[in-house]
Amino acid sequence: MTRQRDTGGMFISFEGIDGSGKSTQARLLADRLTAAGHDVILTREPGGSPGAEEIRALVLQGEPDRWSAQTELLLFTAARRDHLERTIRPALAAGKVVICDRFADSSRMYQGLRGGMRREVDALHSLMIGIEPDLTVLVDMAPADGLARAKSRATVEERFEDFGIALQEEMRAGFLDLAREFPDRICTIDGARGIQAVSDDVYETVAARL
Amino acid sequence: MTRQRDTGGMFISFEGIDGSGKSTQARLLADRLTAAGHDVILTREPGGSPGAEEIRALVLQGEPDRWSAQTELLLFTAARRDHLERTIRPALAAGKVVICDRFADSSRMYQGLRGGMRREVDALHSLMIGIEPDLTVLVDMAPADGLARAKSRATVEERFEDFGIALQEEMRAGFLDLAREFPDRICTIDGARGIQAVSDDVYETVAARL
Repeated sequence: MTRQRDTGGMFISFEGIDGSGKSTQARLLADRLTAAGHDVILTREPGGSPGAEEIRALVLQGEPDRWSAQTELLLFTAARRDHLERTIRPALAAGKVVICDRFADSSRMYQGLRGGMRREVDALHSLMIGIEPDLTVLVDMAPADGLARAKSRATVEERFEDFGIALQEEMRAGFLDLAREFPDRICTIDGARGIQAVSDDVYETVAARL
Repeated sequence: MTRQRDTGGMFISFEGIDGSGKSTQARLLADRLTAAGHDVILTREPGGSPGAEEIRALVLQGEPDRWSAQTELLLFTAARRDHLERTIRPALAAGKVVICDRFADSSRMYQGLRGGMRREVDALHSLMIGIEPDLTVLVDMAPADGLARAKSRATVEERFEDFGIALQEEMRAGFLDLAREFPDRICTIDGARGIQAVSDDVYETVAARL
């Protein structure tokens, strides 16, 4: 269910495989909308509120087998609930544009498709989250290009990015399937071009809906 | 659904209002069963495994409004899932008697009855936990007696115990309703007697089912 727009504001999420450039594009969109006079907040998942950032740290640090996939899904859902309550909903209620780097579609892919828990992901979302973005920008890119970009960045959370080409192919296909599942909400943008060209496409897509 | 017993072991939970003596009774039962030659583990919720104890600390410390009731429910469910996977299921598979101080019935009371989320508690339990104890010992006691006992103990988690008589009355009634809802699983024991007399009752109830 897409959110009722009569509370004002606009909720935009960015999705895509690691290295697709979605975080860069989210930031560029925030900058352009701010320059155009909109009141914008840029946030990310997992995290995006003080409590959710603490849960993020609990999930992503430590040994890879520290949590089962099921426990991890519950922790990510708890973080999303906190993020929604403390950051996203207040900003939307104040009429702001909320730009979020990853939201529930990432759970549908990483815990749902990869973890084989799509039923659980959807049931938890329906029960405890409920909201979908007004618009989701899927930055699509061939995994070979995306992986090269991701590996050039070193982070402590690299187990989420050290999946290899085969899994990234599966994730890319999964995101494209998701775009077909939610055609009114998810807009696919070709990310395999220069940053400015992609940013122009993203901006036009968003501006048409604002 | 009560657990299939063909995996060996026995899963016993203790429930009751704060100060009812359930933790003392859980420990005494563990001692007596151990002395009788059983292989017993005594555990507790929230917590009971290294990961679940970390989640417990995240939930229970800090400001009372740090988490919403919904986020708290998700965090408690994540802790229970970890406890189940890392502590309870391996012990049952090894044929042990697992004695747990609080389990899902506490969520049905504190987040369900008090928090008005019984539907969410049950849906999350069914989706992500699934198991019920083979036997639940409800240590029943008048709140005035229970509260006096609870207040004599100082803990950092006192917001869970500082509810006052009216709420404890509601919780007591809720636990008794739960015992009527699950008559095959929940056995109510009168806790308003000497510790030894209560312990004898608990032991006889358990021994009859072992």
